[in-house]
Amino acid sequence: MPAPSSTRWKCVVAYNGTAFQGWQSQPGGNSIQDVLERRLRRIFGHDIRIHGSGRTDAGVHALGQVFHFDADWSHGADKLLAAFAGGLPAAIQVRSARRAPPGFHARFSATGKIYFYNLYHGRRADPFALPFCWSMPQRLDVAAMRVVAAQLAGKHDFRAFSALNGTTKDDTVRHLRRIELTGSGARLRVTLEADGFLYKMARRVVGALVAAGLGKSTPGEIAAILRLRERTHRVETAPAQGLFLKKVFYQ
Amino acid sequence: MPAPSSTRWKCVVAYNGTAFQGWQSQPGGNSIQDVLERRLRRIFGHDIRIHGSGRTDAGVHALGQVFHFDADWSHGADKLLAAFAGGLPAAIQVRSARRAPPGFHARFSATGKIYFYNLYHGRRADPFALPFCWSMPQRLDVAAMRVVAAQLAGKHDFRAFSALNGTTKDDTVRHLRRIELTGSGARLRVTLEADGFLYKMARRVVGALVAAGLGKSTPGEIAAILRLRERTHRVETAPAQGLFLKKVFYQ
Repeated sequence: MPAPSSTRWKCVVAYNGTAFQGWQSQPGGNSIQDVLERRLRRIFGHDIRIHGSGRTDAGVHALGQVFHFDADWSHGADKLLAAFAGGLPAAIQVRSARRAPPGFHARFSATGKIYFYNLYHGRRADPFALPFCWSMPQRLDVAAMRVVAAQLAGKHDFRAFSALNGTTKDDTVRHLRRIELTGSGARLRVTLEADGFLYKMARRVVGALVAAGLGKSTPGEIAAILRLRERTHRVETAPAQGLFLKKVFYQ
Repeated sequence: MPAPSSTRWKCVVAYNGTAFQGWQSQPGGNSIQDVLERRLRRIFGHDIRIHGSGRTDAGVHALGQVFHFDADWSHGADKLLAAFAGGLPAAIQVRSARRAPPGFHARFSATGKIYFYNLYHGRRADPFALPFCWSMPQRLDVAAMRVVAAQLAGKHDFRAFSALNGTTKDDTVRHLRRIELTGSGARLRVTLEADGFLYKMARRVVGALVAAGLGKSTPGEIAAILRLRERTHRVETAPAQGLFLKKVFYQ
């Protein structure tokens, strides 16, 4: 329970996820949340729990992950940002901090998210792109991928594209508002926007697109998988390192 | 002395220089040259010396560094590339390998080079750009920098912009064929093309441009430094991590 004088802070954080165990606090202490909470303990002198908009898996990156925390800080947002910057590794950067509106919760107030996924096809990505993409020697059939993207766009039960336990009673209907392929040459980016994403859904949607792009699945087969509405091993999970959480929306 | 059956191979290599002690072989064994030579020793079973187009400093990156070596390899260029790829860290990637034309030498046959330098100004670069740029909170006066760039373009004695020992008798005239500022928003890139670069010349030219951009030096002061024709502490050396060797030209 926050003290009456405490303020809820809403922060946007960017991170290179390469060297971390994902967002969520881990016993090893090497998650993004662990590093940020250690920094807050140094700033405030006591434990402060942060709440993210959602988890990102080990190796996934973020440009605009959002978290909140409650604390008594009277020195303004700029000094809070400077205090973060003074002790975080270069791979984790708090980009903005502001007082949250009443009732704000980083997870429960979120109304949507954008992820993007970087593909590199036809030749090997250079050492600068390689840590941030899925690089494959084959060329992808982008036209086939667009057919699959059009099938997946819209409101569907995406359970077959999640890694959720088969017996979960959770609502697994999500509205994939946008699924867009852009890029030129060897670079191809998949942008995904939805009201929310199930566990591993972004990476499994990309896995299905790539399967179509490589001719390993037909668009008809992927449409049939969507209709399954249950977890299946027929969908591959794209590697974590190509995925970026770009933005979290709030009303 | 190469055996009569050996071939001279010309290779293009890209590297993320962050974790290495520069191009040139070092006692610690952690230079790019050391890593490539260790790989060649594994491939060929004996020591092979490689010759780069020139040194890059610790922390400098390359998209198109060139080196050559002499070896007896009868399996073709693709298999040589695959052999490199099989044992190099992801940060070092041999991009092409081909039989060199007669008399080719990676250093002595070079007729020019392109470097670029990434600046990020007005706010802090995100964790993905940060390891590959010079990031500064102030905005740069790009118009002032263009005035300086125009002064430095062309054929000059660049000794004042090198870190060469003051008594060297080497010819220090270089032809800076192109010096170009491009970019938008917080990103600014300086592209430099010359017939050759003196030791630390690229980083010191950028240091002078930034001094003008921050209002620490006037274009007149920088023109006077160029006329000095001797090493001076009035030129700052830009940090290594923003510099990329893009291309080496051969006839």
